[in-house]
Amino acid sequence: MSPAPADPGFLLPERKARIDAVVAQRTRTLTVVMEALADPQNTNAVLRTAESFGVQEVHVVEGPQKRYDRNKKISQNADKWLEVVRWKDTATCLAALKARGFRIYATHLGEGSATLAELSFAEPVALVFGNEHAGVSEAACRLADRTFAIPMRGFSQSFNVSVAAAICLARAVDRREAERGRHGDLSPAEAEALRARFYALSVKQRAKVAKAERAEARRAGRKPGA
Amino acid sequence: MSPAPADPGFLLPERKARIDAVVAQRTRTLTVVMEALADPQNTNAVLRTAESFGVQEVHVVEGPQKRYDRNKKISQNADKWLEVVRWKDTATCLAALKARGFRIYATHLGEGSATLAELSFAEPVALVFGNEHAGVSEAACRLADRTFAIPMRGFSQSFNVSVAAAICLARAVDRREAERGRHGDLSPAEAEALRARFYALSVKQRAKVAKAERAEARRAGRKPGA
Repeated sequence: MSPAPADPGFLLPERKARIDAVVAQRTRTLTVVMEALADPQNTNAVLRTAESFGVQEVHVVEGPQKRYDRNKKISQNADKWLEVVRWKDTATCLAALKARGFRIYATHLGEGSATLAELSFAEPVALVFGNEHAGVSEAACRLADRTFAIPMRGFSQSFNVSVAAAICLARAVDRREAERGRHGDLSPAEAEALRARFYALSVKQRAKVAKAERAEARRAGRKPGA
Repeated sequence: MSPAPADPGFLLPERKARIDAVVAQRTRTLTVVMEALADPQNTNAVLRTAESFGVQEVHVVEGPQKRYDRNKKISQNADKWLEVVRWKDTATCLAALKARGFRIYATHLGEGSATLAELSFAEPVALVFGNEHAGVSEAACRLADRTFAIPMRGFSQSFNVSVAAAICLARAVDRREAERGRHGDLSPAEAEALRARFYALSVKQRAKVAKAERAEARRAGRKPGA
């Protein structure tokens, strides 16, 4: 086994085991596209959910609204472990995903829309979520292989977008396990590269914590009993 | 067919049809217990999600923290259509639900915890969600028939509570349809009572809108071209 580039024996075995377990559950064949979300809280919430479901890549199409900024409290730092790809427009983003073999499913209730339960996840899939008020764009509907909706059973017209993303991702993982046999599916080379990156990030994080602890110890030393 | 008590022909047929469709999807045999949530935004978000899944009753155990208050923006007024039952403590709440035949499933990762996928929804079920920081209480764990967790595949330790509730409710509805044959399951008497209540609420709402429109028209009349 070749040593990972950033693994100076600095990480605890438990941490390495955790990283390996996360890498084994990671995928690049399921992804999320967030189109011009108005509320950065929602973007950050979706990032946390995507990370928890092992989705490694997330695509953010910037809208005319506020630029999305990191919010550590809401994302719980999840985006640190993700690749967040930013796009200026939907058409370019979806064309790039299609060229990589993704089927595009856009959340939109219209004529011919499927329900979430009807979607197949046998192929690589990109799930597109639209702006909280306007929904997905016309471009997204036009370029999508399918449009679909989560059935609404009550008076509410829609789910909050981060709730919708969670429901869709939970379903996608279930279906992928049934239709593809597994969810986490990085190639050995992809897994190796990601492991090295997670090691490096963890080493950096641990160094930061150690530094903070030393600083704290010095402060405590100067003010005994404080 | 006996006329509903609050149906003065004031509602459009489309609105009545909508109400009937919602009532057909309503249930009192699946419920949610929120235990001492710290963030009222989360409580309101869960109410909106529960309403969208047809869950008619939601139980809120008040914590030592802030009292939960209605937030129309986040709940999207969903709680208007729900019965939100408030409790002072968990033990009383869960005892009351058990006496009504509910199985109690508390979200808690511990020894012997099941995964969400392993839970049966053949019987009436109450899903218990705990405080964002402390998790469910010891009382909830002790009184629960099962504790369970949603598998976490990434570095995040947990889902946001409203995301967790959505994932669990989506799963519950699927399993109920498989194990019980249907999700919406009010008795004819329960359905009739709820329909009457929804009619009355809608009439009140429509009267409010009509009043606002008349006021607007008067203002427009006084200021032509405004």
